[in-house]
Amino acid sequence: MDMAENTNQNGMSSATVGKSGLLDLKNEHVKDMEEDVLYHLALSDKTHDLKDMFHDVKFVCFGGSTSRMKQLAEYMVDKLHYKLPAGHTLSNIAGSSDRYVLYKVGPVLSVSHGMGIPSLSILFHEVVKLLYHAGCKDVTFFRLGTSGGLGLEPGTVVISDSVVDGLLRPYMEMVTLGTLVQYPALFDPILCQELMDISADFDFPTVTGKTMCTYDFYEGQARLDGAFCDYSEDDKMAFLKQLYDKGVRNIEMESLCFAAMAHRGGIKCAVLCCTLLDRLKGDQLTSSHELMNEWGTRPQKIVAEYICKTLGIE
Amino acid sequence: MDMAENTNQNGMSSATVGKSGLLDLKNEHVKDMEEDVLYHLALSDKTHDLKDMFHDVKFVCFGGSTSRMKQLAEYMVDKLHYKLPAGHTLSNIAGSSDRYVLYKVGPVLSVSHGMGIPSLSILFHEVVKLLYHAGCKDVTFFRLGTSGGLGLEPGTVVISDSVVDGLLRPYMEMVTLGTLVQYPALFDPILCQELMDISADFDFPTVTGKTMCTYDFYEGQARLDGAFCDYSEDDKMAFLKQLYDKGVRNIEMESLCFAAMAHRGGIKCAVLCCTLLDRLKGDQLTSSHELMNEWGTRPQKIVAEYICKTLGIE
Repeated sequence: MDMAENTNQNGMSSATVGKSGLLDLKNEHVKDMEEDVLYHLALSDKTHDLKDMFHDVKFVCFGGSTSRMKQLAEYMVDKLHYKLPAGHTLSNIAGSSDRYVLYKVGPVLSVSHGMGIPSLSILFHEVVKLLYHAGCKDVTFFRLGTSGGLGLEPGTVVISDSVVDGLLRPYMEMVTLGTLVQYPALFDPILCQELMDISADFDFPTVTGKTMCTYDFYEGQARLDGAFCDYSEDDKMAFLKQLYDKGVRNIEMESLCFAAMAHRGGIKCAVLCCTLLDRLKGDQLTSSHELMNEWGTRPQKIVAEYICKTLGIE
Repeated sequence: MDMAENTNQNGMSSATVGKSGLLDLKNEHVKDMEEDVLYHLALSDKTHDLKDMFHDVKFVCFGGSTSRMKQLAEYMVDKLHYKLPAGHTLSNIAGSSDRYVLYKVGPVLSVSHGMGIPSLSILFHEVVKLLYHAGCKDVTFFRLGTSGGLGLEPGTVVISDSVVDGLLRPYMEMVTLGTLVQYPALFDPILCQELMDISADFDFPTVTGKTMCTYDFYEGQARLDGAFCDYSEDDKMAFLKQLYDKGVRNIEMESLCFAAMAHRGGIKCAVLCCTLLDRLKGDQLTSSHELMNEWGTRPQKIVAEYICKTLGIE
């Protein structure tokens, strides 16, 4: 694949979103299929009327944890003044699978992606196909996650302005048909700025910065507290300080794939992660679960405000 | 790291399991820590008496799905004639986290690892540390999973005799401190043969073969039905046939990391996956959930029989 082919001048792919804003697929095979089983969501375009269920979706919020994404859905009910009919409650639409959870609150989907790039990747493919089958238009994707911070007060929200892998490369490398392929991982700078502007309304710190995305939580993130460790504390600190000097402000495990797939699909996206600790000061997550849960709601507050503003809801 | 240093003549690492069979850690840092928080399991060696809880563990069964691993725990209650006290039921020991589930039935742990290498890797680190803190001896690890098959009747169980990545390399490559490191991914041939011998007692087909482990379910496994696809059906079939000719019999997303980390830790391990479809005939998982669930219990039957035999339980 020639990356240049897939990228126009402003850095956003134009392959799959036409002027109509309609989400199209860069895969002709799916269009010819009699049935498309979205296996890990336990949905199919034959057994479910995906157009009826999802045509009005404009925002998809992704996050690792099932309970945090349920919490976000409940929070959106409140923020959007969404009126559930008497006797109704939110239900996990992917409940027949135990791989992910999927909630819908009007134009907002809240979906869990598990941990790590492969788990996110499966879901991303199936969510994009879901939105395609539903005929959705002008959809924006957010990842609302947790991360380790670098030189930041724990609880700070980092809005990613760029993302690199463990070798500090700004693209996702994957293997297709036995060949290494690279996909550029880019965010929408305007969306990033709009979210940053909104964050000023809240009483917690938010910064923009470079995110490092790794395939391992322990050695992949230079931790000393895994089951294996072949390096010293000095090696670790030298590496983390080098990352800091190169602009890395947080480390997590999905944003590279998120940005690369969204860019490839021509879908506007942003990644907002709260930091649960300062990696320049330690490795272990020892803050109380209550405190970390509160930190985990901070990206939700910014994104909910953005959604309300976009929809004209006060 | 010099791989030769870590491997003795029979291919099994001797770094972390001494003659006593006691599971040791190849990480001195953890031994010096005042507290070790196993964050994603919501356990800690300070808040929990891990020795009391886990000292008798001899077998750890890993699998992707939370419900399948609960089902395995319930199945082990039956197979081991494990007597739960009146009014007791099995409980998810990692229930304060929503990342994984962890059940214990006597000497058997049943734990879910989510999907993909990074998700498994986090859990693997924490389970090994758990067993270390508990002072466990002579522990064997199994992965009981699902996979796509190559040239096999769906429902066939594949016991991996070797594993390769998407570039057909028999090792796991990971990035540590900005450097690529390779870890050999090897299984215990004797355990593999013992499981194969046991499989003859069951009325479903079981084979040994090479497993390919990928970082993506769609393009990474040459599927035509993802959100993106830049290749033709001919390209796909040529690639899959090439895999078959090289001895690959199934494709999944965790075994490379499982074998590499177990080998590095000197822990005996095996991977048994049922195949849910023949990839030479299609991409989509269209069999009924009931049928696929039954297939998913097949690796459990072989492993449960192995455990019972080892423990002298009929």
